[in-house]
Amino acid sequence: MKSLKRKDYYIAVVLLIFISAFTMAMIPEQARRHYKFDKDGQLIRSSIEDYRHWVYVGTPVTPNDLNPPAAAFPDFHNVYIHPSDFKYYEKHGKWQDGTILVKELVTVGSTQAVSGKGYFQGEFYGLEATVKDSKQFPDEPGNWAYFSFGHELPLLKTAKAFPTASCNACHAAAAADTDFVFTQYYPVLRAVAK
Amino acid sequence: MKSLKRKDYYIAVVLLIFISAFTMAMIPEQARRHYKFDKDGQLIRSSIEDYRHWVYVGTPVTPNDLNPPAAAFPDFHNVYIHPSDFKYYEKHGKWQDGTILVKELVTVGSTQAVSGKGYFQGEFYGLEATVKDSKQFPDEPGNWAYFSFGHELPLLKTAKAFPTASCNACHAAAAADTDFVFTQYYPVLRAVAK
Repeated sequence: MKSLKRKDYYIAVVLLIFISAFTMAMIPEQARRHYKFDKDGQLIRSSIEDYRHWVYVGTPVTPNDLNPPAAAFPDFHNVYIHPSDFKYYEKHGKWQDGTILVKELVTVGSTQAVSGKGYFQGEFYGLEATVKDSKQFPDEPGNWAYFSFGHELPLLKTAKAFPTASCNACHAAAAADTDFVFTQYYPVLRAVAK
Repeated sequence: MKSLKRKDYYIAVVLLIFISAFTMAMIPEQARRHYKFDKDGQLIRSSIEDYRHWVYVGTPVTPNDLNPPAAAFPDFHNVYIHPSDFKYYEKHGKWQDGTILVKELVTVGSTQAVSGKGYFQGEFYGLEATVKDSKQFPDEPGNWAYFSFGHELPLLKTAKAFPTASCNACHAAAAADTDFVFTQYYPVLRAVAK
């Protein structure tokens, strides 16, 4: 084996770093998305199953007892965003193509605790998601599509995008100025948006 | 400069990796804690300012309108835990020495949205924390101490531990079986606890 000088190795390492960075920058946007569709275009739940380690966005609660006989979107919704999409939003104040937000549904478990009367989280029972994907959903408003893995356990393994009228209608009516995301109810998002 | 063979570099790199891993394992538990105290034993807020990137634990809401004239712990509390403490909890089902949980206070911003009646997050206005630290708090129940950086902006830069009776009394009364953490209101914790 031909011996090499230490300097040659330094040069090789620096070159390798540059080549890696260049290659990363060349990977098409689509390939960096943090979710997967199956061959029928359904969102695959296992591709986003680490969402509880993502960035927390906020929690509205619309209890059934305030919306008789039942709330349209019952109980607690914990919303999470993929860290790389959040990072982009922090930097640019807008959603990048490929953004995914996940909404976890939790029952109202208790309405009384030592801290007072209110609403306390019970058990997980549902999972929903929205993605902004210009390639998959070129015709949806803002390229957002909405999915539900069900409102009971066990959750579905894949989910089909809802028709435009089912979800986008409300998002368009109440959040069109903020690219269809309900930023008004999520201080985490407002705090970082410049 | 003396030239070296490629093989020598490989050996050096492998050795370096082993030495680093060994050194990490030797760092005492205390040194890995993800918060800092000042010289007076006050918790330093800037040492935990990345908490919004930690693992989300849960959100109770105790609105003032349900607790007239005012709730003891008003509005929304978003609770976060440091990822490494969460990882330990996932693995062992108990809290490691050095665990930190942060509680962010958020106003009730709206009680009506397109999704129905309920409680929607408004603005951040407070920050609290609890740490389990046997070195700093050998005499506290479970070694937990509680801190508040205030309930109005701007937040305090440092916070002094509350006297035992102020916080630990309630935590002991309602959560002594779960090491003083209100696991019953946090499905995220119950889901991972074996």
